[in-house]
Amino acid sequence: MSITVVGSVAYDTIETPAGRRERCLGGAATYFALAASFFAEVRVIAVVGDDFGPEQEAVFAARNIDTRGIEHAPGQCFLWEGSYLDNINEAKTHLTELNVFACFEPKIPDVYRDSDFLFLANIDPVLQRRVRESMPNVKLVAGDTMNYWIKDHRTPLLEVLKGLDVLLINDTETRMIAGNNNLVQAARAVMALGPRFLVVKHGEYGATLFHNALPKGKGAELRAPALPLEQVVDPTGAGDSFAGGFFGYLASQPELTVAAYRRAMFYGSVMGSFACERFGTERLQQLSRPEIDARFQVFRDLTHLD
Amino acid sequence: MSITVVGSVAYDTIETPAGRRERCLGGAATYFALAASFFAEVRVIAVVGDDFGPEQEAVFAARNIDTRGIEHAPGQCFLWEGSYLDNINEAKTHLTELNVFACFEPKIPDVYRDSDFLFLANIDPVLQRRVRESMPNVKLVAGDTMNYWIKDHRTPLLEVLKGLDVLLINDTETRMIAGNNNLVQAARAVMALGPRFLVVKHGEYGATLFHNALPKGKGAELRAPALPLEQVVDPTGAGDSFAGGFFGYLASQPELTVAAYRRAMFYGSVMGSFACERFGTERLQQLSRPEIDARFQVFRDLTHLD
Repeated sequence: MSITVVGSVAYDTIETPAGRRERCLGGAATYFALAASFFAEVRVIAVVGDDFGPEQEAVFAARNIDTRGIEHAPGQCFLWEGSYLDNINEAKTHLTELNVFACFEPKIPDVYRDSDFLFLANIDPVLQRRVRESMPNVKLVAGDTMNYWIKDHRTPLLEVLKGLDVLLINDTETRMIAGNNNLVQAARAVMALGPRFLVVKHGEYGATLFHNALPKGKGAELRAPALPLEQVVDPTGAGDSFAGGFFGYLASQPELTVAAYRRAMFYGSVMGSFACERFGTERLQQLSRPEIDARFQVFRDLTHLD
Repeated sequence: MSITVVGSVAYDTIETPAGRRERCLGGAATYFALAASFFAEVRVIAVVGDDFGPEQEAVFAARNIDTRGIEHAPGQCFLWEGSYLDNINEAKTHLTELNVFACFEPKIPDVYRDSDFLFLANIDPVLQRRVRESMPNVKLVAGDTMNYWIKDHRTPLLEVLKGLDVLLINDTETRMIAGNNNLVQAARAVMALGPRFLVVKHGEYGATLFHNALPKGKGAELRAPALPLEQVVDPTGAGDSFAGGFFGYLASQPELTVAAYRRAMFYGSVMGSFACERFGTERLQQLSRPEIDARFQVFRDLTHLD
């Protein structure tokens, strides 16, 4: 099965207690695509500037990721600068330059139109909706969003939610959308807006899968932990890598059973854990499928009683 | 197997979004003893005032908890008043009156001396150590502490840690003891001070079991989730109930294998989840073993892939 992802391809300048890196290749679509590429065929829709060249192109090519939907525009790529010096779990943003991303108008190559799966990474919900509507035949649509859109762009965001099968967001975002501090109640309220499945990401504590077919009294479908890591080098992109592992694994399955969603949670956690081990996408670029399968076993050992 | 627990028996006045209760029977030793009593014989060492009468005594008696080590002193019981109005996961303390607890000198009844298990709930480490040394023949010792003792009473606390098999504390306390923000590194540092096992409680996100025999590279032994609850009525005592379920389950086991510790984490989470469902110890007082076993299955479903 093939996945089309729309989102940012960017440069990140990152400082963590482990060091500093200037202009790592990043962006939600990049992390998502690299992580998902271990499970499925991935196609990217994004916009980049003149500072995206053959070296960056090669990162995608090495994982057989289709970049024909990456538009090249005059100017510079989206640039983010942030640090995690006080708290490794929370980025402090120092600089955001939208650059070519400010005028992003996603264009869907005809060769992408037979994609079975669509992932709408965190971008303006107006654009998310436009892409969703341009690909009416996809089998499964998942998406992400953030506090900024929830707070100030609620109307278009609600339109996007209607068209999603799966929403992946964090605790705070879930509570914000629902206006309810109890996570279980908030999750039900969010699913009532559209998505059948909701994945709530808890950062270093893992993630919870909610399902709208759960009986009253059963709070959640599955809780998957994050891996306690001896060293978190750089948490940037861990959430997008989780989404890539989760959605990529689903795209690799013959049937979208609840059991498949449950296993997908573990593959999401696996890919998120790798992302944190080195700066930027370094670890995802050097990963192998046997390493992924071995880490899946580590997660199983960490959670299963027998 | 029998467990002796030393700690506070107190009154709590609690306000949460679900309501307010004046002077609930509480205290770490109370929650611990009630939770552990479903698995093992429990004996309590504590001090109470004139306001602890037959009605309170009956709460312990109903669960066959031995209260011969509860000393009656002139004055009032320890009183705590707090609320969880802004954040259900974090208590705001409004009032602490130590009362008879200020002069607590734990006295161990002779009939308690054959206890196999000892739990040192969160009290002055000087007292924890004294109790530990008075019971040299116990098979397993576990304990709890808090930021106040870590910050200002480090020397006696380090003495206590030397004598513990298992320490149960939260994330912040683990990082504080170790002076290290990485949880895995901090856990190793804490275990180097004495305890072979460390249980780090993450509140609504569950708890992680660390073991000092873990190979380098394996971060943790087990992560157990907390139950996503539709309504958290009152989180007071959830951590002590976790400890009671965890330690009580261990005391019920013929052998203290690592597998037993892993299952104990789930029983801890089970008891913690019940504690939150009503005010104070109300839910623990009305609980049955079949309900505990059913909830254990809920936790298994929530975490296991097959």
